[in-house]
Amino acid sequence: MSEIIYLNGDFLQKTKAKISPDDRGFIFADGVYEVVKYYYGKPFRLEYHLERLKNSLSSLELGFNTEGLAAVFETLLDRNKLTDTHAGVYWQITRGPNNRVHYYPEDSVPTIYAFTFALSSDREKLADGIRVITHEDIRWLRCDIKSISLLPNTMLFNKAAKKGAGECILIRNGMVTEATHSSVLAVRNGKVFTHPLSNLILPGITRQAVKEICLMQNIEFVEKSFSEAELYKMDELLIAGTGSEVTPVTVVDDKVIGSGKPGPLTQFIQDEFFKLT
Amino acid sequence: MSEIIYLNGDFLQKTKAKISPDDRGFIFADGVYEVVKYYYGKPFRLEYHLERLKNSLSSLELGFNTEGLAAVFETLLDRNKLTDTHAGVYWQITRGPNNRVHYYPEDSVPTIYAFTFALSSDREKLADGIRVITHEDIRWLRCDIKSISLLPNTMLFNKAAKKGAGECILIRNGMVTEATHSSVLAVRNGKVFTHPLSNLILPGITRQAVKEICLMQNIEFVEKSFSEAELYKMDELLIAGTGSEVTPVTVVDDKVIGSGKPGPLTQFIQDEFFKLT
Repeated sequence: MSEIIYLNGDFLQKTKAKISPDDRGFIFADGVYEVVKYYYGKPFRLEYHLERLKNSLSSLELGFNTEGLAAVFETLLDRNKLTDTHAGVYWQITRGPNNRVHYYPEDSVPTIYAFTFALSSDREKLADGIRVITHEDIRWLRCDIKSISLLPNTMLFNKAAKKGAGECILIRNGMVTEATHSSVLAVRNGKVFTHPLSNLILPGITRQAVKEICLMQNIEFVEKSFSEAELYKMDELLIAGTGSEVTPVTVVDDKVIGSGKPGPLTQFIQDEFFKLT
Repeated sequence: MSEIIYLNGDFLQKTKAKISPDDRGFIFADGVYEVVKYYYGKPFRLEYHLERLKNSLSSLELGFNTEGLAAVFETLLDRNKLTDTHAGVYWQITRGPNNRVHYYPEDSVPTIYAFTFALSSDREKLADGIRVITHEDIRWLRCDIKSISLLPNTMLFNKAAKKGAGECILIRNGMVTEATHSSVLAVRNGKVFTHPLSNLILPGITRQAVKEICLMQNIEFVEKSFSEAELYKMDELLIAGTGSEVTPVTVVDDKVIGSGKPGPLTQFIQDEFFKLT
């Protein structure tokens, strides 16, 4: 059976889904997106994703009614037979087709595109941890907006992929911000450190879940940026995101972190995270 | 007659042009573009645009053969009856449709989309000058690549448009870089100043033409960045670009520049520029 996607109110076979090349999403990256994970038909914190989406839309002054999206996603999952497994729903909203003008045209009708995909937990990565590289954070200064203007993220992730690494940790002015599509957290002396919420990072929903786990379990959660030099000396390192869930990082730029194996606190957080999902 | 565009080898009516929403240009802004101006069917420095395009493609490791593009553009202009006026050709090349993966998929077939448009010189702006605003340069750190990852540019230009201003001059760490879609040049004591070529600005083709005019006319051309504070104190200010050509700037953030009228050196450069076109 061919995959079914959602485009501007219609459920269509993916091969039949077409948009105008004048869509401002294609011409200007003028749009926002979200990815939510469904565990056996149940979304993980969909309301947080919708709230973040509203913030992103608002930053772009992009009017779009998000009511009814949850029902669309359920239909999509159902029609793609993804309700009894782990699945992801991706959706993006752009300012729609128009003449190519740099300002926001008032008469633009937004485009919405959504699709589903099987999104199993990567047991091997979750158990053994991954190797990552670092790179200067060359992205823009509004990384708090989840926009489709993602060329820098793909360029930097591609550098990691070429080296067989699983992510690229980003360094801005000597400080660790996040990774190309996940949050970065570190453990030192029993405390969890991560970059504070600001224009330099996305307010990650899995990051937030880890924060709540730490608060519940009396683990000190410190929202304070740490330097590249400190990064290599951490006891444990992990990335967090909708796709990566809570993944241990064991090697950064060929330097071993801690024992070189997923640390005990990382594994504890991972276990607690899966209890939530 | 309906407008004719070019898409992946075909000349089509614009209303019939469709792409996949899985195009990486739509999902990741994974693509590059150029705009060239034709004066009565003759392109202005097309070879420079093609050279810059090759650099942009190469930065994205995007393989695309640019031979034959000039002929495509001529056909487009001809079919849209734009050969005996001022016209623009816009084209963009993306990595094409694929599964949504952050790395560059090896099996991706690029998408090319090109269209033409009437692009008259804006006589009023060219004669009277324009009012602009300033804003922090929030863009990424590879502004030398002419990518379609343009959300920041549209956000910032939209701020200008809302205030009735004609451009938004960008300030990074206190220094003027360029504007949202034009280069910024200033005149002080008979010398022309502009930001040096670096990762922070696009190597503008009109900027380069102005540089050559200055060198030919024994006007000192200083590629050195100047501060926001210095900006307001300049004798003359101008923006340069394919669309804006050489446009005087007379007011910045409600502060009058120089005499408040297009300066003599700006007008001289403007005249010399039009001799080239």
